[in-house]
Amino acid sequence: MRGESFRLTAHAGRARAGVLGTAHGEIETPVFMPVGTQASVKALASEDVERLGARIILGNTYHLALRPGAERIAALGGLHKFMAWSRAILTDSGGFQVFSLRERRTIDEEGVTFASHLDGSPQRLTPERAMQIQALLGSDVAMAFDECPPSDSERAIIEAAMARTTRWARRCLATTPAPGQLRFGIGQGGVHLDLRRAHLAELRELSFDGSAFDGFALGGLGVGEAPEVMHGVIAEVAGDMPAEKPRYLMGVGTPEDIWQAIGAGIDMFDCVMPTRNARNGQLFTKAGRLNIGNARHRDEDQPVEAGCDCACCARYSRAYLAHLFHAKELLYYRLATVHNLEHYLSLGRRARELIAGGTFPPTPW
Amino acid sequence: MRGESFRLTAHAGRARAGVLGTAHGEIETPVFMPVGTQASVKALASEDVERLGARIILGNTYHLALRPGAERIAALGGLHKFMAWSRAILTDSGGFQVFSLRERRTIDEEGVTFASHLDGSPQRLTPERAMQIQALLGSDVAMAFDECPPSDSERAIIEAAMARTTRWARRCLATTPAPGQLRFGIGQGGVHLDLRRAHLAELRELSFDGSAFDGFALGGLGVGEAPEVMHGVIAEVAGDMPAEKPRYLMGVGTPEDIWQAIGAGIDMFDCVMPTRNARNGQLFTKAGRLNIGNARHRDEDQPVEAGCDCACCARYSRAYLAHLFHAKELLYYRLATVHNLEHYLSLGRRARELIAGGTFPPTPW
Repeated sequence: MRGESFRLTAHAGRARAGVLGTAHGEIETPVFMPVGTQASVKALASEDVERLGARIILGNTYHLALRPGAERIAALGGLHKFMAWSRAILTDSGGFQVFSLRERRTIDEEGVTFASHLDGSPQRLTPERAMQIQALLGSDVAMAFDECPPSDSERAIIEAAMARTTRWARRCLATTPAPGQLRFGIGQGGVHLDLRRAHLAELRELSFDGSAFDGFALGGLGVGEAPEVMHGVIAEVAGDMPAEKPRYLMGVGTPEDIWQAIGAGIDMFDCVMPTRNARNGQLFTKAGRLNIGNARHRDEDQPVEAGCDCACCARYSRAYLAHLFHAKELLYYRLATVHNLEHYLSLGRRARELIAGGTFPPTPW
Repeated sequence: MRGESFRLTAHAGRARAGVLGTAHGEIETPVFMPVGTQASVKALASEDVERLGARIILGNTYHLALRPGAERIAALGGLHKFMAWSRAILTDSGGFQVFSLRERRTIDEEGVTFASHLDGSPQRLTPERAMQIQALLGSDVAMAFDECPPSDSERAIIEAAMARTTRWARRCLATTPAPGQLRFGIGQGGVHLDLRRAHLAELRELSFDGSAFDGFALGGLGVGEAPEVMHGVIAEVAGDMPAEKPRYLMGVGTPEDIWQAIGAGIDMFDCVMPTRNARNGQLFTKAGRLNIGNARHRDEDQPVEAGCDCACCARYSRAYLAHLFHAKELLYYRLATVHNLEHYLSLGRRARELIAGGTFPPTPW
C-alpha cells in the first residue's frame, strides 16, 4: 500500500510529474504547498485556499503543540476538522523551528529542551514526541524530527548533526503513525555534496518493522547560502533521492528557485515567501515583482496582473490595493496573499502541463 | 423624483418598514449599514459584505479625503468602482471626525481648519467642500456638514452649534450633488428635547432652489449619555422627523439601542460596534454576548451561534476562533466581523418581518 502512494506520470529531462496519494485526496506534483503554520494560511480562510486550487497545505508541529496544543486538536477531531480543511496536510516536525531558537535550546541525544517563544516555559521535543504530535494532529504527511545545524556550521558539526538525524530518523520510524499517515525523512549535509549524498544513502536504507520512509526531503537549504550554490547542490543531489518516491525541497524559495529545482527533479515545495512578502507589499507577477507601496500604483486602475484568475485580480485594482496597504486595512493582507499564492500555485500547474507535454524550459512563462 | 425616493410599506405601533430608492438599488428599512470608513468594511472584502446581504454601507468623507483623496477616487471612477461595491453607499460628512479632533481644530463661520491625524498637515473642511468630496466620491446618500459639540457642552454652546449647523445645512443644499445623490440633514440638540425639536423644525423647512433634504438624521447621540437618557430622547423626537422621509440615527449603538430606536420609528442605523467589538473578541449572539478570549471557548467544538447562517458559523468552531484570536491570526478578525455583522443585519431583517406582520415586540428574539 505505502509503496503505491506515489506514481510518476511524465518526465521531461530530469523534471518529473506525478501523483501523490494521501488520506485526503490525490496531489498532482510538482506542487507548491501554502504554509499554514498556526492552523491558518496567514490572512486566508480555508475556503480561499480551496478556491486557489491548493490540494495540500503545511501545518507546524512546534507552533501547534505550543498553541492550541496537540492533545486539544486531537480531542477536537484533528487538524483537518479544527481548521475546516478537508484536503491534505503535511506537518513539519518542528525541528527547524526548535533549532532556530539557538540561545534558548539545548540538545542531547534524546531530544531538545527549549523555552517556548510564547511564554518562556520549558518544553521538550524528542523524535517520539514530534511524531506523536503529528499523529495527534492527523496530518497526511509527517516529517521526521531532524537536527538542523546553522548554515554556517563547520563540516564536523554538520556531520555530527547528520549522524544524529539518522539515529533520530530510525526512532521516528519506530513510532506509530496516524492511520494512512505517510512519513518523510529529511536529508541534511549543508552545501557539501558528499555529505548530502551519504546522508540520503543512509536514510533510504532505514526501515523499521518493514516500514521505510514514503518520501524524502532536502532540509537546511535556502538558509543563507548563495542561490547559485543552492541550485548547484539541488541539481547534484536530487538524483540521489529515490526516483520512485516524492522529493520535497523544504522552505525554498523564490519562483526562480522552485523552477530550477523542478528542473532538477524535485516534486514538492513550501515557502513563506509568497505569504510573508505579500504582507510586506511585494507582489509576484509573470513580468516580475512589484512593490504595491510605490507611489505610481496609487492611480493604476488595472489589476495587479492582467489575465490573472485570482480573487484579488478578478475584482480589485492596484490603486485599491495600494490604498489598503497604505491605510493598513486588514483586507490588504488577504488580497495580496491570494494573489501571491496564485502565482506560486501556478508554477506547479505550469510545470505539470509542460512536463506532460515532454518539455521543461528554463523559465515558466 | 426625489420625494419618491422613500416609501413606507408597513407600520407596527410607531415602528415603520419602508423602501429607500437609491442610484445603486433599493434598500428595505429598518436597515443596519456596515461601516466602511476607509473604503473597506474592516477585515472584509466587498464579496463578504454582499454575501451578508448588506444593501448599503458607509464611507467616510474625512478619512477618504485625506487618503487616498477624493479627486483620486473620482479619477478612478468613484467610490463604488474603487472598492468594487455595486450596492449603495452613504457617506458621512466628516463633521463628526473633525470635531472629535478637539485640540487640533479651529472653527469659524466658514468652516473648520484642522490638522490631519495622518501627518499633521493643515486641512480645511467647509460645508461646500464636504459636499464636493461626497459628490466626487459619488455616494448615494450624502450627509450635510454639521457642527457636533461635545456631549457635555453647556446648553448655550449646543444652541450656537445648532444655529451654525442650520446655516451650514443651507449652504450644503446650495451645492450640486452627484447625479441621483440624495442628501440628508443632521439634527443636533444634545439631550435637550426642546432644542432637538426646534432644530428638526428648522432643518425640515430648509430648501434651496426647490430642493430640500431627502432624509433626516439624529446626530450627537450615543456619545456618552446614559442609554436610558438616549432612548428617551429618541422616543420623544423621532416623531418630529418628517414621517414621509427616512430617519437615520447616526453611530448608535448596541443591538438593544437599535431595537429601541426602531420601535420609536427610526429607519436607518450605522455603528462601529459590531466590527470593532469583533476585533476585540466580543461576539454578539441572540443569547447575549460572548468573549472569545475566555478559556472555556478553547475546547468548544460548536459554532459561535447554532443555527447562524454566516460564513463563520457555517464552517468554523468556537475553539478555532479562540485559537485564531489568541494567536492573533488575521483570519480571526474576518470571521468575527462576519458573524457580528450578520447579527446586526439580522436585526433589520427581523424588524422588517415583524413590522410587516403588524407587530413590534420589545425584544427581537
